[in-house]
Amino acid sequence: MSYDLILLRHGQSDWNEKNLFTGWVDVPLTEAGRAEAARGGELLAEHNLLPDVVYTSLLQRAITTAHLSLETADRLWIPVKRDWRLNERHYGALQGKDKAEVRDQYGEEQFMLWRRSYDTPPPEIDDNDPHSQTGDPRYMDLGDAAPKTECLKDVVERFIPYYESEVIGDLKAGKTVLLAAHGNSLRALVKYLDGISDEDIAGLNIPTGIPLHYKLGEDFTPLNPGGTYLDPEAAKDAIQAVANQGKK
Amino acid sequence: MSYDLILLRHGQSDWNEKNLFTGWVDVPLTEAGRAEAARGGELLAEHNLLPDVVYTSLLQRAITTAHLSLETADRLWIPVKRDWRLNERHYGALQGKDKAEVRDQYGEEQFMLWRRSYDTPPPEIDDNDPHSQTGDPRYMDLGDAAPKTECLKDVVERFIPYYESEVIGDLKAGKTVLLAAHGNSLRALVKYLDGISDEDIAGLNIPTGIPLHYKLGEDFTPLNPGGTYLDPEAAKDAIQAVANQGKK
Repeated sequence: MSYDLILLRHGQSDWNEKNLFTGWVDVPLTEAGRAEAARGGELLAEHNLLPDVVYTSLLQRAITTAHLSLETADRLWIPVKRDWRLNERHYGALQGKDKAEVRDQYGEEQFMLWRRSYDTPPPEIDDNDPHSQTGDPRYMDLGDAAPKTECLKDVVERFIPYYESEVIGDLKAGKTVLLAAHGNSLRALVKYLDGISDEDIAGLNIPTGIPLHYKLGEDFTPLNPGGTYLDPEAAKDAIQAVANQGKK
Repeated sequence: MSYDLILLRHGQSDWNEKNLFTGWVDVPLTEAGRAEAARGGELLAEHNLLPDVVYTSLLQRAITTAHLSLETADRLWIPVKRDWRLNERHYGALQGKDKAEVRDQYGEEQFMLWRRSYDTPPPEIDDNDPHSQTGDPRYMDLGDAAPKTECLKDVVERFIPYYESEVIGDLKAGKTVLLAAHGNSLRALVKYLDGISDEDIAGLNIPTGIPLHYKLGEDFTPLNPGGTYLDPEAAKDAIQAVANQGKK
């Protein structure tokens, strides 16, 4: 008995293109990002890895990625579960800021600490910041629990319990599960699945738009540690491109 | 206390354009149909009728209509519930057939009986017909209960119990509910909501892409019988166009 879990990071968004910190700001995909999503669906179909259920964050770049990939895979009809716990890391006061400018202003060390350290969140975002989610109806139920900044550790702590309580249930039922989410929520999950240390996770980049397939054994640990990208060549190139983000 | 229910019939599909009986065949929207869906979302936003939950059929023309309308209304993040009971009427052996040819072959009377009578289904579709849904994974759970043809009465009998058990629960919870569905599943619901007779329902057409808003009272009957189209002028024109379908 084994279980099929597929991770899909959304394609390019408006703010990826503009090199801004995005976090919980709900920006749309670019045309290139939409094409990446459609290609992701083709890869699912080509590998006959057809999802039975899809999970998304509450952010449109993941939701539309799910829609477009399922459209090309001809699986739009499967059940959908949306939850904020799949959201991108909340980038705090950095949301809406230019990555290169933040690097120039705060220096390489602080920049990399905020981007890649496991447990150092950026400063909290102010409620009056135009890029704050205060008052956003989709997070109303969270009340004071709604984050105003997050480090990767925070993402692990909100996402993994949800994965264990919800996603594993669907896997147990024999369903192929697609998670359409974000760079950091997927890094949090990969850290957990592959048992990556707090230090080593800093070096892990997940490319956009290329489904990452985990075959899980009976204890839900990977039979293929690190997972298998459905387009390994494109994944290699894309991982390098992600690593270059923030460089001028 | 009142409740907001919004019905949205999908826009033009490939087979609407080609004038073929569609039923449960899973054809995509045309570009015109996609534009209708986006316009539907604008109307929701303009009238501040923002859905808290969306129901769709298992057919991509309704699913994509929901996605595109929620995209323009900036509500992609709301929960989604999909169920076959919102599907279009199963058109039996007529699925995939040209409407004008069926009219020529069987005569106006039989044609209108199949299209508009309350309780006369077309002949059952053969399992080997290329337009049969036998073997389609999305209907596997239905087993022998999967229809091979339906009249409007059959649609009422499958959809209304679902509406009463599921949709009303969300309305009771104070949620604005969007149903993205089909000409005949929505006619079934309107018949029920407005208490339209088996005879009179034949004359009722629901235009595509224009949200139809019902304000329901405490007993879940309409405070605005017949509902209110969010673009009444366009609705009037479109109702006439639907009535002309099947004419050469």
